[in-house]
Amino acid sequence: MIKIIDLRCGKDSDIFENLASRSQLEYRDVLDRVEEIVANVRRNGDKAVLEYTAMFDKVQLTLGKLRVTEKEIKEAYTKVDPKLVEVIKRSRDNIWNFHEKQKEKSWFSTEKEGVIVGQLYRPLEVVGVYVPGGTAAYPSSVLMCAVPAKVAGVSKIVMTTPPGKDEKINPAILVAANEAGVDEIYKVGGAQAVAAQAFGTETIPKVDKIVGPGNIYVAMAKRTVYGYCDIDMIAGPSEIMVVADETANPVFVAADLLSQAEHDILASSILVTTSEDIAKEVQRELEAQLAVLERKEIAGKSIADYGAIIIVESLKDAATVVNRIAPEHLELCVKDPFAALGDIKNAGAIFLGNYSTEPLGDYFAGPNHVLPTSGTARFFSPLNLSDFMKKSSIISYTRDALQKVKDDVILFAESEGLGAHANAIRVRFQDGQDK
Amino acid sequence: MIKIIDLRCGKDSDIFENLASRSQLEYRDVLDRVEEIVANVRRNGDKAVLEYTAMFDKVQLTLGKLRVTEKEIKEAYTKVDPKLVEVIKRSRDNIWNFHEKQKEKSWFSTEKEGVIVGQLYRPLEVVGVYVPGGTAAYPSSVLMCAVPAKVAGVSKIVMTTPPGKDEKINPAILVAANEAGVDEIYKVGGAQAVAAQAFGTETIPKVDKIVGPGNIYVAMAKRTVYGYCDIDMIAGPSEIMVVADETANPVFVAADLLSQAEHDILASSILVTTSEDIAKEVQRELEAQLAVLERKEIAGKSIADYGAIIIVESLKDAATVVNRIAPEHLELCVKDPFAALGDIKNAGAIFLGNYSTEPLGDYFAGPNHVLPTSGTARFFSPLNLSDFMKKSSIISYTRDALQKVKDDVILFAESEGLGAHANAIRVRFQDGQDK
Repeated sequence: MIKIIDLRCGKDSDIFENLASRSQLEYRDVLDRVEEIVANVRRNGDKAVLEYTAMFDKVQLTLGKLRVTEKEIKEAYTKVDPKLVEVIKRSRDNIWNFHEKQKEKSWFSTEKEGVIVGQLYRPLEVVGVYVPGGTAAYPSSVLMCAVPAKVAGVSKIVMTTPPGKDEKINPAILVAANEAGVDEIYKVGGAQAVAAQAFGTETIPKVDKIVGPGNIYVAMAKRTVYGYCDIDMIAGPSEIMVVADETANPVFVAADLLSQAEHDILASSILVTTSEDIAKEVQRELEAQLAVLERKEIAGKSIADYGAIIIVESLKDAATVVNRIAPEHLELCVKDPFAALGDIKNAGAIFLGNYSTEPLGDYFAGPNHVLPTSGTARFFSPLNLSDFMKKSSIISYTRDALQKVKDDVILFAESEGLGAHANAIRVRFQDGQDK
Repeated sequence: MIKIIDLRCGKDSDIFENLASRSQLEYRDVLDRVEEIVANVRRNGDKAVLEYTAMFDKVQLTLGKLRVTEKEIKEAYTKVDPKLVEVIKRSRDNIWNFHEKQKEKSWFSTEKEGVIVGQLYRPLEVVGVYVPGGTAAYPSSVLMCAVPAKVAGVSKIVMTTPPGKDEKINPAILVAANEAGVDEIYKVGGAQAVAAQAFGTETIPKVDKIVGPGNIYVAMAKRTVYGYCDIDMIAGPSEIMVVADETANPVFVAADLLSQAEHDILASSILVTTSEDIAKEVQRELEAQLAVLERKEIAGKSIADYGAIIIVESLKDAATVVNRIAPEHLELCVKDPFAALGDIKNAGAIFLGNYSTEPLGDYFAGPNHVLPTSGTARFFSPLNLSDFMKKSSIISYTRDALQKVKDDVILFAESEGLGAHANAIRVRFQDGQDK
């Protein structure tokens, strides 16, 4: 049964540290193994990729079979429920429309003496999308990772995903990839896929950024290659926090808590409420709904280990708890959710009101479901268009403009002991140099 | 003498790999040592910080002396040339104005059936600025790191910098910090400073993001704590690339190449030119200017090891070289620099025309001088306002809106085997639940 923690009257709880302990950054032994895989793939390219695929995925691929063919993609369409194909297309369109609204433009500003400063925005050239295989094959994640890259104008989207023992990829994954505009798909997973994308192999292109969820090996590999290419984030287990007052519906709240609990035994589902009645009713309702859930073992363990109902004095106090935990998903099931928004500082995605249920965001509303976890919403953002863009500063000075500020620059440079910096200004105003 | 490489007629060169070898990501032995320091500071807090300060900085600080006092800051103003104080203020104002232009607003979009989706932008709460000590104490970097954080609305800016053997901090650093609005300054440097900021100690606040340059220990420490907090980037040695046609001034070009060469023996200064005459004149001019340079030993070694003059057929070919190297600083010393901009994809800061010399960007023009190095301009951006902001997605659906899409969401969720996700939608439309 989910625990109820009463934080009223200035109490505190160890729940905050308990949640933080789920961070996926603490796996030194995994990291050592991953670093070995990454170094080997970097050195030996395709050969190492095929060896690891044989070792971990139990599939003996030949080089010619590493890349998914047009034929395989066409076949995939025949194996997916046509209704699902239509849903995938509608979901893609919503994701496209939302991310299109995030487009930022290059800009410049003209100043006195003909000075121009500005920022030039460019899409990344090549982006890698990692897609987990096996039971956690989520076509929705393919859309969430690839569509924003496409909207940004990325020239080439390269996907990697581990093959099943039959050498095949889940057909819904292939359909989603095709509908999202993925350009190339390779049958490789795990740390070896991340390494192949970061450094390139004879077959698999080197990418500028790797995005997408994965298991602990993938997460550690992304951490290892960070700096050689960019990565989206180090994803941890799923989280939902629901803030509820007495106007919330306990049936809805329990169902929403369970929607994240079913992901993973490490997932965390927390209700923060100002109402003791809601606390008790959600506790009861969770038991009832859990009993008939298909993934009740996972969800039950997650609720028992990392679930909690926290009772607080006021919505202000609820916001304090939210900001401290910085949840991946936050639902505001309160009378006036927009008013409550003002106090929320740290959360990946915020769902307002009783009908904005979290799965809507996972699949359909348009905002990205790749979200910061494990408290990183303090400083990370949902995957968004700017993840697929880079900026360059623009500086253009005329001779007159430089002349006006030259003494300042020279003084500053010389104060830092950088004479050649000062000299670069000075030579421009030496006799005979006004070319 | 700088080497001249002729890339005309389809030739290639090993210069690209030679440059890549300067990456600061390859120091496994340093990383091991740094991980030990980080773990120790995380576990033992201030005690470990003071021990490392004694060990590395040769200063026996007591806890009470870790934080720089108001009195020390006031004293610093008496030791800095008043003219420099004025320059620091003017530079700060330019940096402030440029970064203010980068401000992005939270936005939302209203859709059919009362749907609202959007993005909420918030400043980070606490930002850490690392400032190197010793000979590489650059007040300009303090401004570049702290001012954008202030513009973004960060609540608290915490600076760390190693003390000299006299327990003091370079006064110009303190003046710059004060003028930039830094809130707290601690006398700690190296990996121990990064660890203290990432995890917090009894005295030093935990931060959301650490920005600022540093030596290899600092770079590796930032890499190690990435994920516990955010970091700006892993900085490598400085780089400048100048693209010049026959209209360029060889004296200016040589001076600008040397301005980066003087930073570091690993710095890279490269001229790409369509003109053989310019190539030869710059080569000669470099020798002449080097001879009288204060830091000629550093600059000379940098030019010999990582400098080059590359001759290309056309400005298009020059752009190809630029994009392949993705330099930190790029100067376009060509007849029509704005026309040349269209082909440039990868560069940190771009300086247009003969009077837009690189040091102008280091000190004064306003755009940030914390820039991606070692080819990472392929995917990283100059430090900018969005580095100090985070985003949250906003989703608000009415009952009608959810009803319209509920079958799609349920189908998608069930296709992924996530029954509790589907259930969260279903319960909302069960009889008697329309509360």
